[in-house]
Amino acid sequence: MDNNFYVKEKGLLIVISGPSGAGKGTVCKELLKQMKNLAVSVSATTREPRNGEIEGVNYYFLNKGNFLDMIGNNEFLEYAKVYDNYYGTPKTPVLDMLDTGVDVILEIDIQGAAQVRANYPDGIYIFVVPPSIKELEKRITERGTESKEQLSKRMDCAYDEIRNAANYSYIVINEKVPVAAYQIASIITAEKCRSERLESKIEEILGR
Amino acid sequence: MDNNFYVKEKGLLIVISGPSGAGKGTVCKELLKQMKNLAVSVSATTREPRNGEIEGVNYYFLNKGNFLDMIGNNEFLEYAKVYDNYYGTPKTPVLDMLDTGVDVILEIDIQGAAQVRANYPDGIYIFVVPPSIKELEKRITERGTESKEQLSKRMDCAYDEIRNAANYSYIVINEKVPVAAYQIASIITAEKCRSERLESKIEEILGR
Repeated sequence: MDNNFYVKEKGLLIVISGPSGAGKGTVCKELLKQMKNLAVSVSATTREPRNGEIEGVNYYFLNKGNFLDMIGNNEFLEYAKVYDNYYGTPKTPVLDMLDTGVDVILEIDIQGAAQVRANYPDGIYIFVVPPSIKELEKRITERGTESKEQLSKRMDCAYDEIRNAANYSYIVINEKVPVAAYQIASIITAEKCRSERLESKIEEILGR
Repeated sequence: MDNNFYVKEKGLLIVISGPSGAGKGTVCKELLKQMKNLAVSVSATTREPRNGEIEGVNYYFLNKGNFLDMIGNNEFLEYAKVYDNYYGTPKTPVLDMLDTGVDVILEIDIQGAAQVRANYPDGIYIFVVPPSIKELEKRITERGTESKEQLSKRMDCAYDEIRNAANYSYIVINEKVPVAAYQIASIITAEKCRSERLESKIEEILGR
């Protein structure tokens, strides 16, 4: 006999954010290797699919009219317009996965995370930071994609963002990727042990 | 260069409690194998040392006069009288270890944990429970140390204790010892990532 006699616990929405260059994408990839049974939220976009991109895997590709309708119907956990295109996280697939007990990872920038928090305050909000501002500058410089002016703007922005890290429940310092991923896995495991999440389990244990 | 340029974070007091028979002792032993840099709190007692017991390792052995003085001076995190002997957790060694950044494990019964909470609300309070009341009854019966009446009393007591599990921040269901120990290790790792504990670290990252 398995456990599906019991009411399944709702999954956790794990929101992983942080300044650009902190390495949250790399940490999330490593997390998925370390921890099984995690789903990754898929974004919607109005931009054209690139070669090899698969509908529902890389993105949900929508036309602008549909996207705007969904905004009007409050069907996004968050969205943003970047140049001419829209990007967003549709609510329904995420909430459906959570309802079936699957934990969902949402890797997202800081503005997006703030929108998600407003729509889903019960999520676990984790802020990934670089080990130092200097290290962040070094990482962004090594990418070589920014002009000197862009870099300076970006560093000012990162500075302000990191100052507001306390808005998040957890902070993970990405000095070594496997350690940072392990810390996020630990946060997920620990959150599942929080007593307020185990009330119905306690009833089960007591045989009521 | 190492890190001791920086202010060292205070250690965490991890209080592990639960009904008798839940297996908290076994789980703690396994936890110490899985996680390094944990210290275990040593109790004081007025009972006679048994063969092979070492002062400061198994217990601090005190005479009754000293123990009562320490009670009077509020020098215990918790204490209890069991038949003719006193048992307790002296504050000073625990607080000293925490001040040097060492995490301290305190495995203790439920009455003791309640006293510790009153004296040290910043601890991490973890409640270890059996997978079911039936399993607990089985475990206690197999020990064969209790009369039928004692067993019945004990089960009533465990039932009430488990009903109050929500007094703890975390609940760990001891179905398999290594999994339960892993969950406690995860709780400790996660608690160290809580943003309110990392304020000074954020200042460091910003280079202030």
